[in-house]
Amino acid sequence: MISSILVANRGEIAVRVVRTCRELGIRSIAAHSNVDAGSAPVLLADDAIQLGPGPAKESYLNIPAVIEAARARGADAIHPGYGFLSENPDFAEVCEAEGFVFIGPPAQVMARLGDKSSARAIMSDAGLPLLPGSREPIDSAEEALALADEIGYPVIVKAVAGGGGRGMRVVHSAGEFPRAWAETRANAQAVFGDGRLYVERYLESARHVEIQVLADNHGNVVHLGARDCSLQRRHQKLVEESPAPELPDELVAEMGAAAVRGAKAAGYVGAGTFEFLVDGQGGFSFMEVNCRLQVEHPVTEMVTGLDLVREQIRVASGEPLGFTQEDVGFSGVAIECRINAEDPSRDFAPAPGLLSECVLPAGPFTRVDTHAFRGYRVPPLYDSLLAKVIVWAPDRPSAIARMRRALAEIQLSGPGVATTRDFLSDILDHPRFRAATHDTTFVGSFR
Amino acid sequence: MISSILVANRGEIAVRVVRTCRELGIRSIAAHSNVDAGSAPVLLADDAIQLGPGPAKESYLNIPAVIEAARARGADAIHPGYGFLSENPDFAEVCEAEGFVFIGPPAQVMARLGDKSSARAIMSDAGLPLLPGSREPIDSAEEALALADEIGYPVIVKAVAGGGGRGMRVVHSAGEFPRAWAETRANAQAVFGDGRLYVERYLESARHVEIQVLADNHGNVVHLGARDCSLQRRHQKLVEESPAPELPDELVAEMGAAAVRGAKAAGYVGAGTFEFLVDGQGGFSFMEVNCRLQVEHPVTEMVTGLDLVREQIRVASGEPLGFTQEDVGFSGVAIECRINAEDPSRDFAPAPGLLSECVLPAGPFTRVDTHAFRGYRVPPLYDSLLAKVIVWAPDRPSAIARMRRALAEIQLSGPGVATTRDFLSDILDHPRFRAATHDTTFVGSFR
Repeated sequence: MISSILVANRGEIAVRVVRTCRELGIRSIAAHSNVDAGSAPVLLADDAIQLGPGPAKESYLNIPAVIEAARARGADAIHPGYGFLSENPDFAEVCEAEGFVFIGPPAQVMARLGDKSSARAIMSDAGLPLLPGSREPIDSAEEALALADEIGYPVIVKAVAGGGGRGMRVVHSAGEFPRAWAETRANAQAVFGDGRLYVERYLESARHVEIQVLADNHGNVVHLGARDCSLQRRHQKLVEESPAPELPDELVAEMGAAAVRGAKAAGYVGAGTFEFLVDGQGGFSFMEVNCRLQVEHPVTEMVTGLDLVREQIRVASGEPLGFTQEDVGFSGVAIECRINAEDPSRDFAPAPGLLSECVLPAGPFTRVDTHAFRGYRVPPLYDSLLAKVIVWAPDRPSAIARMRRALAEIQLSGPGVATTRDFLSDILDHPRFRAATHDTTFVGSFR
Repeated sequence: MISSILVANRGEIAVRVVRTCRELGIRSIAAHSNVDAGSAPVLLADDAIQLGPGPAKESYLNIPAVIEAARARGADAIHPGYGFLSENPDFAEVCEAEGFVFIGPPAQVMARLGDKSSARAIMSDAGLPLLPGSREPIDSAEEALALADEIGYPVIVKAVAGGGGRGMRVVHSAGEFPRAWAETRANAQAVFGDGRLYVERYLESARHVEIQVLADNHGNVVHLGARDCSLQRRHQKLVEESPAPELPDELVAEMGAAAVRGAKAAGYVGAGTFEFLVDGQGGFSFMEVNCRLQVEHPVTEMVTGLDLVREQIRVASGEPLGFTQEDVGFSGVAIECRINAEDPSRDFAPAPGLLSECVLPAGPFTRVDTHAFRGYRVPPLYDSLLAKVIVWAPDRPSAIARMRRALAEIQLSGPGVATTRDFLSDILDHPRFRAATHDTTFVGSFR
């Protein structure tokens, strides 16, 4: 059994993991950069240890420092949260080699699915529908251009090592292609240390719908329904909801079954997410698997009643899932809004600073996951996510009304601080969102 | 339709009502004493109006001032919250006479049920089981003593006008009776302006289990399951939960049916609560009806998914209930802890003061209803309830673990401030609470 967990992350997700640890009677240790010494997870955890200086490379991404911290504090397991080392197979491998339980899928599984091209091959073999594109990474620009011409424009060029909305570029014509290819390759090499690319058809107006799966070490896999994350800006999710609105039950069931089949084919273990695109004709295509907890996991928690971090820890402890697919119940509608420290009037430029005001919404069926507090200085070094506001209601109009109320209550401000709050409120009021006829291009075309 | 509501209350329940108003697009007006001018509901509501000076008699209990405030702000309806004027039939009558919708049952119904003796008669006629006792108020001490002797000790002497745990005295022998009778009568006369008393058998070790009902103007009545409120100190509830643990389903169904029958017999409209005592043999007896929203209503909300304030407003607007008994679903377990500004080490003496620290728990399935914020000065004039922490989980052990985690997070402190937090944590850890073998005497015998 796991009795202590090093939380190798920061911000709201570190707080989230610490909370479940406490409920399970597991000692939590917040591993943090020096910049985060006075942060909420550090204050909330049972113990804390400094990893290194502020820049993530020297702390949250520093594998030897994380391992050393786990050893120094006698942790049994390491929870990587999302981002940082969470999808790094080398890290997972080192954890296991050093005798720590990595709370996530096995290293080899993560490696196979993290390589977008190999993931496509696995899922194609498992019978999941894919958009037309290259099965293997493409070496030459000429070969890629020929394939793009064959697929038909627009196409999307994606880094094999990309993910989370980064390392991709939409190309609308053959004329643009060579330059887009060269730039994406250079960028992928610089960001991921891996310049390999592949090409697939790009759907102009599709919905981003993903399926949450849970798998144990005993061959059991269940899905926890769908999340619609179509409200995106530059491939970054802003608003997520579960269930996916206005999607036929049969389609969701089909996608759920596909995700379970894909997880089994990949030998998946733990909590993971299958991302799909749903086109206007009700067809769906596999995009990628996220081998970690998602930012938007609370909407799934609110409609299923499950604690996904608890399930992750149970599975990592070797326990079988405590329920079957038939046991999973779905109730009502949950929506999440991401409040980022960004200035919508300045093209969403990061707007960190001192939070001299911090009022958080509460009340019936309203949840806020955040590390923010009054007097907290948002560091400019990291992700701009300040708070996630999650609401639940029996039906979608009530959930939207509840979210509008919650957004009206939240106040995160101070010198230099701007947030996406009002921008999100406007989006929630939009007839296309209310009618759920929006797709991934909606925010880009908005006001 | 109701488009604006005067909230004639303060503290967390005023915040609670304001939130639902906002979700429904109803303008809320916080009516407040001068002491509460900078309080959370005043800051959160769309509008505010001062009723008068701090003492409740001059503000929250001042009927002409409340009516005048509603008129001045053009309110359609008045929500009385709990306590203060919420169960005052005269107030309900004046509201209606002055053209305001009173959000609660009709004045005559409230009068009939507020008179504990008349309530017993109605419920007895409706076939609800009652503890042996007087059907009518008793005039003479001699007559009361004779009845007590006949019933057998212990008995409880109750004020006809009492309620909410006040105006009652347990008597263990004939020798104590005359003095207890005289003192309770004098007290009832002083506190309620009504010295009439009645006598009934007192159960030494019983559980306090109550049924939430909802009734509309069209004859529809449903119940929303049971709450166990056995954790009491001097008849004041400390911890409440739903469903009632370890109670047979058939018994709860029987109590639910009895409450619905009683509500119909009384012509009840709105949200109300039937309080019962459950004895060790699985028998139950009617105690009283609370003609208002209860402090502990959130536990019912969390297991049913309903917003009870919304339902109150719908019913007050004349709408029929939007669901039948069969539509009401129950899921999981919810627990509420009341964090009072009281000092357990000084016999729970009120301990108000400046909240220099205010950290509230959050996270999965954790709700806090409060008007507290950092820098808030808790006035000594009113009820000591500072915050209600409510959690939900699929099962009772998980809910208790979640509550323990939430209580560990909450910090409400400052010069002169003490709270019941640690006392409640200790109670939650007690084997009798964990096994749900506790009864209403448990807290009194605790440490």
